[in-house]
Amino acid sequence: MPRYRITIEYDGSAFVGWQRQPNGISVQEAIETALERLTGEHPRVQAAGRTDAGVHAVGQVAHFDLDQPLPIKNLRDGCNFHLRPHLVSILDAVETSESFDARFSAIRRRYRYRILNRRSPPALARGQVWFFGKPLDVSKMQVAANFLIGHHDFTSFRAVQCQAKSPLKTLDHLIVSSHEDEIWLDVEARSFLHNQVRITAGTLVKVGEGAWSPDEVLTALRAKDRSAAGPTAPAQGLCLMEVGYP
Amino acid sequence: MPRYRITIEYDGSAFVGWQRQPNGISVQEAIETALERLTGEHPRVQAAGRTDAGVHAVGQVAHFDLDQPLPIKNLRDGCNFHLRPHLVSILDAVETSESFDARFSAIRRRYRYRILNRRSPPALARGQVWFFGKPLDVSKMQVAANFLIGHHDFTSFRAVQCQAKSPLKTLDHLIVSSHEDEIWLDVEARSFLHNQVRITAGTLVKVGEGAWSPDEVLTALRAKDRSAAGPTAPAQGLCLMEVGYP
Repeated sequence: MPRYRITIEYDGSAFVGWQRQPNGISVQEAIETALERLTGEHPRVQAAGRTDAGVHAVGQVAHFDLDQPLPIKNLRDGCNFHLRPHLVSILDAVETSESFDARFSAIRRRYRYRILNRRSPPALARGQVWFFGKPLDVSKMQVAANFLIGHHDFTSFRAVQCQAKSPLKTLDHLIVSSHEDEIWLDVEARSFLHNQVRITAGTLVKVGEGAWSPDEVLTALRAKDRSAAGPTAPAQGLCLMEVGYP
Repeated sequence: MPRYRITIEYDGSAFVGWQRQPNGISVQEAIETALERLTGEHPRVQAAGRTDAGVHAVGQVAHFDLDQPLPIKNLRDGCNFHLRPHLVSILDAVETSESFDARFSAIRRRYRYRILNRRSPPALARGQVWFFGKPLDVSKMQVAANFLIGHHDFTSFRAVQCQAKSPLKTLDHLIVSSHEDEIWLDVEARSFLHNQVRITAGTLVKVGEGAWSPDEVLTALRAKDRSAAGPTAPAQGLCLMEVGYP
């Protein structure tokens, strides 16, 4: 029973998120339906990161098993054919070992959070950025971000309904940078808590607009209390860039 | 009677083009309607480049007159408010002299044509790139592009219905470059013939895929015959980046 690993790009706008939900179509369902049409089988597709509704990906990774092997090229192109008109694209497909698990084998996840920081709303990037009209101070945001890098109890930075057993995570990178009229937060860790990147973005924007001093982010981290951190930034600014494996 | 100059970003996907048409909504109509709601006046908005249906802009420039002066900030933000939900955004508004004409005062126009060159269709950039699945040779495309730079009779590279009096134009820049899985054509001239950039893109892709040698682009240019050049590339890959004034 061959196992396949696929790399996926999607626009999360029209989806209820990665995972199957009763209230609308998910990326998982779109891909599983395309694979059913292509193969006649009913594989269950499991992803590295179960992105929320509205969150995008350019490097999501998933795995599934098939009873009958299929040439890789047919798998990628055939799945893309059956995915239309959904905004989901299989970038790559490879056969992998039975021991590979897209979620549990991953040792690194990289996300980008995009903030459009100008007076005028987005036209071309609508739905792919958080539009924030007040000027943001990028260097203060980086000073605050540095308090979050490393191994910490991130209770303040996870959704109340987060189901992870432990709030301890190691944030390896958190870089704030300017790109024309956008500010990008590039974050990397082995794994993240639920809404961790979006709460980080919402908190750093508090600093960027001058409502908080950078030190208050350290205070929020130490509080180990969700209400001590900033708001959860909108889903549409977030994109899963890359998942790393050993 | 004050004259205003605005810089505009838009996603051309849902529009019949810049210019008012009986068969659908144009960017011009969207902006004129927003200005009517904002000011109660009926200004006619004239643009530097009358982009075709599906063509985007991040730096379109236009001008219009008002009977009653309006603070610049109110003009930009108020117009953006009334433009919703159209994918059109006024990036900047300034008062300008009566002699300024967005179209006729322009001395430089820069366009970018984006080709997504990979096997898998776009998800996040859908509608903003030309998806081309066969591999393209960027360096051969640049060799061919160099034949088009300078002052030439571009009859082979203009739409049959082009209304310009002369087919003589000076192409100042034509740069072919790779950006991850995209190929960009960046072109600059004082002005362009109708469809000139899209026919250039369609022709250079013929070279990139190996169907034509770079020399055949020179032959096509010298033929002074539209049928000698390549096909007109899809509108969605084209974006007006910038308009320059003295």
